Amino acid sequence: MTDHAKLAWADVARIRAAAPLVHNITNYVVMNPTANALLALGASPVMAHALEEVEEMVGLASALVINIGTLSGPWVEAMIRAGREAKRRGVPIVIDPVGSGATRLRTTTVERLLAEAPPTIVRGNASEIRSLVIADAATKGVDSTHAVEDAIASARTLAERHGCVVSVSGETDVVVSKDAVVRVRNGHPWMARVTGMGCTASALTGAFAAVSATPFDAAVHAMVVMGIAGELAAERSRGPGGFQAELLDALFLLDEATVVKHARVEVP
Amino acid sequence: MTDHAKLAWADVARIRAAAPLVHNITNYVVMNPTANALLALGASPVMAHALEEVEEMVGLASALVINIGTLSGPWVEAMIRAGREAKRRGVPIVIDPVGSGATRLRTTTVERLLAEAPPTIVRGNASEIRSLVIADAATKGVDSTHAVEDAIASARTLAERHGCVVSVSGETDVVVSKDAVVRVRNGHPWMARVTGMGCTASALTGAFAAVSATPFDAAVHAMVVMGIAGELAAERSRGPGGFQAELLDALFLLDEATVVKHARVEVP
Amino acid sequence: MTDHAKLAWADVARIRAAAPLVHNITNYVVMNPTANALLALGASPVMAHALEEVEEMVGLASALVINIGTLSGPWVEAMIRAGREAKRRGVPIVIDPVGSGATRLRTTTVERLLAEAPPTIVRGNASEIRSLVIADAATKGVDSTHAVEDAIASARTLAERHGCVVSVSGETDVVVSKDAVVRVRNGHPWMARVTGMGCTASALTGAFAAVSATPFDAAVHAMVVMGIAGELAAERSRGPGGFQAELLDALFLLDEATVVKHARVEVP
Repeated sequence: MTDHAKLAWADVARIRAAAPLVHNITNYVVMNPTANALLALGASPVMAHALEEVEEMVGLASALVINIGTLSGPWVEAMIRAGREAKRRGVPIVIDPVGSGATRLRTTTVERLLAEAPPTIVRGNASEIRSLVIADAATKGVDSTHAVEDAIASARTLAERHGCVVSVSGETDVVVSKDAVVRVRNGHPWMARVTGMGCTASALTGAFAAVSATPFDAAVHAMVVMGIAGELAAERSRGPGGFQAELLDALFLLDEATVVKHARVEVP
Repeated sequence: MTDHAKLAWADVARIRAAAPLVHNITNYVVMNPTANALLALGASPVMAHALEEVEEMVGLASALVINIGTLSGPWVEAMIRAGREAKRRGVPIVIDPVGSGATRLRTTTVERLLAEAPPTIVRGNASEIRSLVIADAATKGVDSTHAVEDAIASARTLAERHGCVVSVSGETDVVVSKDAVVRVRNGHPWMARVTGMGCTASALTGAFAAVSATPFDAAVHAMVVMGIAGELAAERSRGPGGFQAELLDALFLLDEATVVKHARVEVP
Repeated sequence: MTDHAKLAWADVARIRAAAPLVHNITNYVVMNPTANALLALGASPVMAHALEEVEEMVGLASALVINIGTLSGPWVEAMIRAGREAKRRGVPIVIDPVGSGATRLRTTTVERLLAEAPPTIVRGNASEIRSLVIADAATKGVDSTHAVEDAIASARTLAERHGCVVSVSGETDVVVSKDAVVRVRNGHPWMARVTGMGCTASALTGAFAAVSATPFDAAVHAMVVMGIAGELAAERSRGPGGFQAELLDALFLLDEATVVKHARVEVP
């Protein structure tokens, strides 16, 4: 059986050694904390969204993370353009369909991305993942109104259709490919009370995708590391305010023994 | 006499129970901390500014917060469009006229909003509020150069003209309608040394507007809760850096006894 | 010999007394922390990027900071327009060429700014500074791949060509004019693990440029104060997460004795 704890740690060590450049085209709300989470983990983040430069930046990057949290027309075009270039170069692509299902713009943008710049990994909450398969699924703003287990069938359909890995986050995180399902039972309830925790998980998934043996491993290891860091941060905090700084410190200070001790991965 | 402390707490409890979706079209500087403040309080924030989706997002929301802190052409149009849709649907609108009086673009944008998407509540500092009534009033960037008491006449004029509540923040906060004035003497001087504290007050005002009995109550209760959280945060901090995380924790941990004990509301 | 420690403190005192308005046209990632750093130091930050208002805002400001970290077409035009107006009015201009060398858009934008809105001070990392002089110099995203000492010749060329001061940040910071070089040996390695520390140094350089006797002094004093604050913050932190709040508190609480004790400035 795959020992995801050991492998997750090995990937962290690779990220720290290589400091892979992760190119993010992401939303305004989370640019700062996702850049900081990537730096704390050991990766090198860059944000760039201009049509004039996204292809060039993708050419320098080891992973591309596309997050649709605060869309507008020119950003959509930049995401498509960057995604195509990443595909052409074999740079792994992570898509975070923030708020898909809440508005047509968000759902159709993800559909365009899936068609024109097929992702390596899609990482979203249960409502967002369902909205990409079930026509009338709804999302409350950017928050999920569905349990993760209710999104697994949608995740598998998505994985089959697009040949990608789907990472569904919630109280339990579930990573799905066309023929595998792994559950990660790490994390803390306060992560739902800090903005951009899902977006941060997506950014870290990008860093792992740059070094992991497979996209599936990358998705699992990112959720393990994110979840463990969340648990450690919660132990040292009174609430979601102090939690944010502690999360960065937990990512920065993470060691093998801690990962092995805390990882709760269920491989069927 | 209205017991605003008790009522403020009751509104907090309502926000925590209902987690109202607050749609923010706000400035880049404060998107992250205002989203986090709304989450810490118990509301559900969403940021969306694309012309293609603002009306749809307003349709899901329980309040709309418009903040002009970092304007540009397409954002102004999105604000107008979202504001009209909110008006049509009866969704309460909070406008934060950040930097009104500093540049013509800011002042005229607020004037357009007041005319085309009449707000439920306007919340700004003394200079900003004055600039909306007195033609040659000036603002130093986004900071007030006037005392709150000097803005009360302007606030009343504004309230009368537009049938809205006006919330003026400063050392003492003053909430004004056409026939009432309430002073809130909560808060801490460090709140002027953290960017976006006014914007955060506006975002919280949106959450309260989603649940309060009246817009006037919403404006008062938001300033009470924000001010108390600021006092509690300052007690646990050395300066404005640590203060930010403590403010979020204070909002998250707030309980009835604390609100009742600390609220300093003057109803004439 | 110039006592930069004493002079740096005198400038901090001036900033606290005058609260100069620093107009930032900067990147989305760092807007919040740079505004907070300026406030913690005692300056008054404003962010404004609309073509319709940048000239008016420059007219209110005591310094203009242009940071190209997340460019797009309209922002470039706003930077040029603001820069020209600042030049016309004698408002000092600080340019931070974030990621120059990584993409053509970034390099050419800085070249346009150097030509059309000649800066008072350019502040960047070694790779960025080299890219402005050496045609094929590369930058890894926004991180430097060169040692500061390798950028001194480029910095001098840049200083001579454009009659500006060049501030190169790294393990040691070096401030260069056409006829002087000063090294600042303050700072802490974690500053490379927090996003926007260079951008924050540029913003503070803007505040110092508003009050310092000379642009050269402004550049040196900003790096001294930033570096000392970083050292103090690291002493009180476990990692780059907690460090961020501590850095703001250190800026806020800084006193003369601390500056004099910790400043490590090498004047040849």
